[in-house]
Amino acid sequence: MKRLSHVDVQGRARMVDVAAKPITRREAIAVGTVHLTPAVLQMIVTGQIPKRDVLAVARVAGILAAKKTPELIPLCHPLPITSVNIDFTPNKRQSTISIAATVKVEGKTGVEMEALTAVSVAALTIYDMCKAVDKGMVISDVCLMKKTGGKSGTYMRTVR
Amino acid sequence: MKRLSHVDVQGRARMVDVAAKPITRREAIAVGTVHLTPAVLQMIVTGQIPKRDVLAVARVAGILAAKKTPELIPLCHPLPITSVNIDFTPNKRQSTISIAATVKVEGKTGVEMEALTAVSVAALTIYDMCKAVDKGMVISDVCLMKKTGGKSGTYMRTVR
Amino acid sequence: MKRLSHVDVQGRARMVDVAAKPITRREAIAVGTVHLTPAVLQMIVTGQIPKRDVLAVARVAGILAAKKTPELIPLCHPLPITSVNIDFTPNKRQSTISIAATVKVEGKTGVEMEALTAVSVAALTIYDMCKAVDKGMVISDVCLMKKTGGKSGTYMRTVR
Amino acid sequence: MKRLSHVDVQGRARMVDVAAKPITRREAIAVGTVHLTPAVLQMIVTGQIPKRDVLAVARVAGILAAKKTPELIPLCHPLPITSVNIDFTPNKRQSTISIAATVKVEGKTGVEMEALTAVSVAALTIYDMCKAVDKGMVISDVCLMKKTGGKSGTYMRTVR
Amino acid sequence: MKRLSHVDVQGRARMVDVAAKPITRREAIAVGTVHLTPAVLQMIVTGQIPKRDVLAVARVAGILAAKKTPELIPLCHPLPITSVNIDFTPNKRQSTISIAATVKVEGKTGVEMEALTAVSVAALTIYDMCKAVDKGMVISDVCLMKKTGGKSGTYMRTVR
Amino acid sequence: MKRLSHVDVQGRARMVDVAAKPITRREAIAVGTVHLTPAVLQMIVTGQIPKRDVLAVARVAGILAAKKTPELIPLCHPLPITSVNIDFTPNKRQSTISIAATVKVEGKTGVEMEALTAVSVAALTIYDMCKAVDKGMVISDVCLMKKTGGKSGTYMRTVR
Repeated sequence: MKRLSHVDVQGRARMVDVAAKPITRREAIAVGTVHLTPAVLQMIVTGQIPKRDVLAVARVAGILAAKKTPELIPLCHPLPITSVNIDFTPNKRQSTISIAATVKVEGKTGVEMEALTAVSVAALTIYDMCKAVDKGMVISDVCLMKKTGGKSGTYMRTVR
Repeated sequence: MKRLSHVDVQGRARMVDVAAKPITRREAIAVGTVHLTPAVLQMIVTGQIPKRDVLAVARVAGILAAKKTPELIPLCHPLPITSVNIDFTPNKRQSTISIAATVKVEGKTGVEMEALTAVSVAALTIYDMCKAVDKGMVISDVCLMKKTGGKSGTYMRTVR
Repeated sequence: MKRLSHVDVQGRARMVDVAAKPITRREAIAVGTVHLTPAVLQMIVTGQIPKRDVLAVARVAGILAAKKTPELIPLCHPLPITSVNIDFTPNKRQSTISIAATVKVEGKTGVEMEALTAVSVAALTIYDMCKAVDKGMVISDVCLMKKTGGKSGTYMRTVR
Repeated sequence: MKRLSHVDVQGRARMVDVAAKPITRREAIAVGTVHLTPAVLQMIVTGQIPKRDVLAVARVAGILAAKKTPELIPLCHPLPITSVNIDFTPNKRQSTISIAATVKVEGKTGVEMEALTAVSVAALTIYDMCKAVDKGMVISDVCLMKKTGGKSGTYMRTVR
Repeated sequence: MKRLSHVDVQGRARMVDVAAKPITRREAIAVGTVHLTPAVLQMIVTGQIPKRDVLAVARVAGILAAKKTPELIPLCHPLPITSVNIDFTPNKRQSTISIAATVKVEGKTGVEMEALTAVSVAALTIYDMCKAVDKGMVISDVCLMKKTGGKSGTYMRTVR
Repeated sequence: MKRLSHVDVQGRARMVDVAAKPITRREAIAVGTVHLTPAVLQMIVTGQIPKRDVLAVARVAGILAAKKTPELIPLCHPLPITSVNIDFTPNKRQSTISIAATVKVEGKTGVEMEALTAVSVAALTIYDMCKAVDKGMVISDVCLMKKTGGKSGTYMRTVR
């Protein structure tokens, strides 16, 4: 049966030993959604051109956060990330901005946490930049969509 | 009409000038929910005592993240936080762990982002510690519950 | 006669004691110039709209760097910055981008280093984003333009 | 024709994917110059022995900054730097201190930004330590002198 | 005869060049001791169950500090740590808590400093959490117990 | 009876609420000792002049570490430190270097942890710079010597 790898048999936290694992090419895709009012969504994506700085700032924040993951998540291993990509998809009907982060590495462990952290911090940055107009925004459905590489192989999210 | 304060009239990002604002006592409460399988929830909260290290690690991660907020969220002001408190409420029926973070400060601007960041990073840390067993966890409903202090006064979340 | 305040009488580095200084409103403006080829300048500022992400990224990097100043410059005091603003002025005739950073604080010491650091890191970020096309860019004339507030009063740069 | 690699075809910032690049030995040398008054230069380099703490502090700041490059420059990759060396050359006739930083790595991408960042932060640190005496110092001619290794091969700066 | 590798022949600090060294599996074990009053020791380890959060927090702090070592110790190389483990051994007779940190890596240089830093920061965190009751705690005997791997081979501490 | 302030009644970690405490001028002095072989001590302090870079680097590391304390020690409050001073006293007879750090602040809580962290990181840095010659160095007697200011008043270490 599977067990929590980040706590030892006595339940104490530890950074799992990955020394014996081979270095393989790995990729993780995480997603999340920011729910905001139609008025705020309009300001960000359909306003005059300069407004797109909101998403540019959120993108930079997400990329930097991916690199900060081992500082933020205590038991994460430091990894030499080779790529981070963040996409925003505004959806007027649902009044949302979807965020997708793709992170790649050649390493002994995966970049799921890096992708999830990038999505979360990009979402928080959108919140920050819009909160003067709407404090009711909600960040939801932050989850792993897919990961490839490593011993456990490919994971694809299925609806549950 | 309200406008996005973090971009100037030409849409360029800036750190808003708060020099003229008075220092007041402020508080923010943010919440969020981690959805996990009953089996993982069981491992964390109803297992043998040592398992509670999972939540202890997530709590520390959230507190440290609150202090890192101005590094993570590009346009946030550095603030001398006076208190951070993080609570976890497991819910077996819904198979969730709810997270609530309360942050206080005496400052020229509020700590909404600090509370939201603490919740997000605590949730990500729970994800990290349990992902060996379940990669399907979802972080949802991260939002501001309440904030007090400052010129805009009290905000209380209402259902929408 | 003036002396170096950051080394003691025996020449040893120290963080100067500012405890006894009053908290006053202070501002510093620093500038700098990136010299690049006309082709690269064209790509950044006169190309299609999306290219302005280059300057948006450099602006975010400069703002974040202002907040990191006490981590980077060993003897700088941590300060509760109240505002950071970064402006870019492309100049086709000289084939340059001028950078100006304005930083404000209410504190016991000034924000000259924060403004200079913001300019330097914004310039380095422009370099980074364009280096695939031109490695010959030069960053020059990084200096303090003006500072106000504090015991030593106003400083205005004069040509020398 | 060359293009800006750090923005995609729609101009959006991204951390370039270097996964497929081989790991090679790379080196970069960057330089820069601090212009200061003869009196300040004298204090730093020709005064009594203890004064050399000014340059020792600037050297440490530059070395630490090289390691912080991926935190400061948003689209830089984290790299396992294998060596950093910083040299200062005072020049009384020109009333300057020249700074040269040499950084080495075995990695998938180069260390040009690490070397340029080390030079810039070392220069800013000299500014900080001397600003009580002279606020008019100028940092100029920060540029890449040479880089070796990697697909694009050797770059040697030429006068232009 | 051996010499200080971190200063060059002129005594100037540098980050030693490890480019030519092979990547080998390395491990380091460091230890240290916190001396505290019997009353405080009792509160931490023999009190009701929840008190063990003190050691859980110290463990997380130590693990995070191991990852921060190259930021804290100026001439340390950044390393892709593969494992960190921290153990606490309370000793009622001596009224102490012993701390042992084991760090592993596959790298060009060792993780002695990472292990020593983990021990020191875990000890400081215990101090912080108990200082409201006892400010007289002392941290002693922080030293390297063992290291394996690398050109210099195995080191085992002997009594001196 | 005194209790551990950093854990609540259920033993959960928290950042203590200091909002209601007045801002007062505070100072803390911490000390510690590095034990090394006479040969290494000789290299550092009685060798040719350039060798003093060892202590200059350790001093910078200690000052920077004082500023990093709230990042390292999870429940520490961020504080606007107004001064840090680090002194080294070599003792040939005992073959030691004593380290003393003095930190000042005007804040709602004290700087004991900042002073202790500065001492520890300065000691670790000496270890790092000398470990090529002697891996047997020991860091001992890291403790608080004195603190003034705040509700609990003055603390002076007494022999125990």
